[in-house]
Amino acid sequence: MAHEQHQQLLKTLHECMEACNHCFDACLEEEDVKMMAECIRLDRECADMCAYLEQAITRNSPFVKELAGVCAAICEACGNECQKHNHVHCQKCAEACFECAMACKAAA
Amino acid sequence: MAHEQHQQLLKTLHECMEACNHCFDACLEEEDVKMMAECIRLDRECADMCAYLEQAITRNSPFVKELAGVCAAICEACGNECQKHNHVHCQKCAEACFECAMACKAAA
Amino acid sequence: MAHEQHQQLLKTLHECMEACNHCFDACLEEEDVKMMAECIRLDRECADMCAYLEQAITRNSPFVKELAGVCAAICEACGNECQKHNHVHCQKCAEACFECAMACKAAA
Amino acid sequence: MAHEQHQQLLKTLHECMEACNHCFDACLEEEDVKMMAECIRLDRECADMCAYLEQAITRNSPFVKELAGVCAAICEACGNECQKHNHVHCQKCAEACFECAMACKAAA
Repeated sequence: MAHEQHQQLLKTLHECMEACNHCFDACLEEEDVKMMAECIRLDRECADMCAYLEQAITRNSPFVKELAGVCAAICEACGNECQKHNHVHCQKCAEACFECAMACKAAA
Repeated sequence: MAHEQHQQLLKTLHECMEACNHCFDACLEEEDVKMMAECIRLDRECADMCAYLEQAITRNSPFVKELAGVCAAICEACGNECQKHNHVHCQKCAEACFECAMACKAAA
Repeated sequence: MAHEQHQQLLKTLHECMEACNHCFDACLEEEDVKMMAECIRLDRECADMCAYLEQAITRNSPFVKELAGVCAAICEACGNECQKHNHVHCQKCAEACFECAMACKAAA
Repeated sequence: MAHEQHQQLLKTLHECMEACNHCFDACLEEEDVKMMAECIRLDRECADMCAYLEQAITRNSPFVKELAGVCAAICEACGNECQKHNHVHCQKCAEACFECAMACKAAA
């Protein structure tokens, strides 16, 4: 079954989605929100795509490879932005994004 | 067919989703992003719920009423926040949200 | 943080989403697809709502309670349909749905 | 603004999402559901991706091109399956899918 083959990818996508949404929420509470604007934007992009790909894998979508390719690009962009910021939520998010980008590339 | 009965609601939901996502994007480009933080958060909530309900209606979901009830509450909260701000995108968004809240209440 | 308070609910939602999407996929491969039509429909409803609520919780949405109320109703309906069928994927799905319905009610 | 540049694409995506979800619903009501299994699966894939891309465009996502590329492939696959079936909902869906595939390719 697709969702068993991809068990590790599913876990990585889920952790990335959680990290991005937590970062989105935390960025909106920061003192300097303006500095976090691009981070907020990319957190949403990345969380939504990871959540989408989780669903696609578990329903055995015929398009997992194509979606994983796009997801890898989005994770990488989000990780690159997040790692510029010293907040713990950004550093954790960057780490989750880069791990997820690698896992998605392997599946693409 | 469900999506024919609900044609006006679908149009209203779609306009609200567009207005919220445009407002989300525009808020992130504002000079004072911090002042817009709650608006950014609620724009995402509202766009996602409107998009979700559009899909639910068009696939003839048995849960349109329950979802419309929640969507009405989210639209109202987003409209209340948006109308506090003078930006054109916020005022347009508030208008779309209040119209959508009414349409959702009628369907709930 | 919201996603820490709700760690158990997140796990339950995720397992329910996986079980529903796996059941959706497996039902479409069954010999008698017609008998599974309502199951296929409700699996999609339930997977989508669980995935939506997972995202809402992790982004600290102000609407978790309202969404959890709707999610409970959808999980229950999906569980009731799935438990009518003897397929292993349906029985597993029903179990995940009922567990998730309870967790959502507690959060609502 | 992104959502103004892409006004025609947004309309086409929306019509495709509606046609796919209507076809999904109608296929589940057909006498011979088994024959429609692949159609049901692809209708969900296509509706979800079109809805996702609508949201991405309206929030000015930096990944519209990449997403449009995947969406084009999904629309084409769904259109190819739908056009095999004589049901009016399948023929309408195939038409909407092919139109959307073209529009997505142009944006990709």
